[in-house]
Amino acid sequence: MPQLRRDPIVDRWIIISPDRTNRPFSLWAKQGKNGGAYCPFCEGNEHSTPKETFAIRKTGFGPNGVGWTLRVTPNKFPALEWDGIVETSDDGIYRTVSGVGAHEVIIETPRHDEDLADLDVERVADLFKAVRLRCLEFKKDDRLQCIQFFKNHGVQAGASLEHSHSQIIAMPVVSKQIQEELSGAARRFAENNTCVFCEIIKKEIAEGVRMIAENRDFVAIAPFAPRFAYESWILPKEHCPYYEDADGAHAISLAEIYKDVSGGINKLLDNPPYNMTLHTAPFNGGKQNKEYHWFVKIWPVTTNVAGFEWGSGFYINTVAPERAAEQMRNILFS
Amino acid sequence: MPQLRRDPIVDRWIIISPDRTNRPFSLWAKQGKNGGAYCPFCEGNEHSTPKETFAIRKTGFGPNGVGWTLRVTPNKFPALEWDGIVETSDDGIYRTVSGVGAHEVIIETPRHDEDLADLDVERVADLFKAVRLRCLEFKKDDRLQCIQFFKNHGVQAGASLEHSHSQIIAMPVVSKQIQEELSGAARRFAENNTCVFCEIIKKEIAEGVRMIAENRDFVAIAPFAPRFAYESWILPKEHCPYYEDADGAHAISLAEIYKDVSGGINKLLDNPPYNMTLHTAPFNGGKQNKEYHWFVKIWPVTTNVAGFEWGSGFYINTVAPERAAEQMRNILFS
Repeated sequence: MPQLRRDPIVDRWIIISPDRTNRPFSLWAKQGKNGGAYCPFCEGNEHSTPKETFAIRKTGFGPNGVGWTLRVTPNKFPALEWDGIVETSDDGIYRTVSGVGAHEVIIETPRHDEDLADLDVERVADLFKAVRLRCLEFKKDDRLQCIQFFKNHGVQAGASLEHSHSQIIAMPVVSKQIQEELSGAARRFAENNTCVFCEIIKKEIAEGVRMIAENRDFVAIAPFAPRFAYESWILPKEHCPYYEDADGAHAISLAEIYKDVSGGINKLLDNPPYNMTLHTAPFNGGKQNKEYHWFVKIWPVTTNVAGFEWGSGFYINTVAPERAAEQMRNILFS
Repeated sequence: MPQLRRDPIVDRWIIISPDRTNRPFSLWAKQGKNGGAYCPFCEGNEHSTPKETFAIRKTGFGPNGVGWTLRVTPNKFPALEWDGIVETSDDGIYRTVSGVGAHEVIIETPRHDEDLADLDVERVADLFKAVRLRCLEFKKDDRLQCIQFFKNHGVQAGASLEHSHSQIIAMPVVSKQIQEELSGAARRFAENNTCVFCEIIKKEIAEGVRMIAENRDFVAIAPFAPRFAYESWILPKEHCPYYEDADGAHAISLAEIYKDVSGGINKLLDNPPYNMTLHTAPFNGGKQNKEYHWFVKIWPVTTNVAGFEWGSGFYINTVAPERAAEQMRNILFS
């Protein structure tokens, strides 16, 4: 079983997961499309993945066979293991938690030559709906405290298979990043009695310079202090801590604005590798959760993160967000 | 002038530095040795860099010409600018600080075909002595609050030039990583009345399973919760918050144990790209500083950091540190 370990100085959790070394991944090697090579995510190869936990299928087709447009299956090389109980040990300095959790793959299309950004709005919305349903399912499990939904597109963005897919990991401890965001939001709430994300949305709409796109339910902005060039945040206009509480209708709006942002990045940077992450409140975070506001980040991978960033936690960004947003607006809407 | 910006949610600083895009760097392109190509760091090409701020030279040779074994010069494409005053602005949500600071390159050898790990102990010690001298110099400047010394070796580790070099950035705000380490050390000091780093050293020497190497002044360990496979920490046995306070004699011991660690990594993983970072207390950190303990991290770049890590702050490591340390000991000492 994998093991979670806590850094005793900065309270960061890491997962020791030796079985992951067996996954089909060769670093820095695979750069192009693998064309004819065998792909476990293609339609017809459903037997190559663990049994699916959710799928969208045409009527008349049964589970774990063909006829689907989206499939969710456990990751064959999971970072965490599903079966087991959460046990903690602490010797006064080093803390471990058993590596119990879920690690699922969402295969976004049966076709190898399609990417998420190519799909029509309804099918992109299916992805966001599937994430919500899996999240609601994981929330029922007392062992789990939060989820991380993410997409790695392209080798440099960390994808080990090129067939369009994303992933959900459900974890037995609250992640450091979400804990920092919760604490930051709580601190600002204590100071100003408002949600910092709601403040940002209001300010960005008023100022306009970092706006990328807007629709009924969402804004897309280049954040004021982005770690990465062309980093984009998609924020729901309505204050809501939990992604899973957003109703189904939101998935269409989210899909629309996701297509704007990823379409803009793809046109501007010629289909770069990119990452997408969902930030949502933990399942049982208590009072602090109310002051949180779920959102999505998308950014192209244009540079190596290196010694300076790892050592200091500083990031150097060569494209000001005001310029990035202007370029995105120009390519999308002019 | 570059600009520092603070993320209003998680207090992370980023540097907006548009001029850096002009540096000679083609992402994912350059993979091998550039052999005969022009290199601004080679002996004889001293005119290609800004005027040096420090150098070690044979007698009879003057500044900014040949005859050196180590040179320090301002980075031609600095992340921060030297000339200017530190001005802060804050509109209640977004904070900026002018991008004033130093960004220097340490050219570790006049020869293009030598790497730091190949140099003898005295010349590696010269690097660590040079870092100390530059640090003492920056500490005199009231505008600066901390330094980050780091080395990016290899393209995948972020090096834009292959000639063996490392860098120092001196900053007008305290970095998030050091602030977290200071806070963590202070929290544990308040609980246990001991330095957490001293506790770790004592425990690791007693348990032995994560020990890599040890000499008079330093231990090298695989840390209990490493972000990266084969991540190694070099810790001075004597409690000391400030790297610059370590006396000159320490540089030889540090060079010896650095050569052990980097030699082990190079043998085990066939000369991988790697990063090295120095962690040292801020110049004017006050009381908290006393509870801090400077140290060095070295880790090979063996995987892409991707959506899960960026979204959650969790890291997945496929090599347990106990196994990494055993492999390192075996290859170094058996």
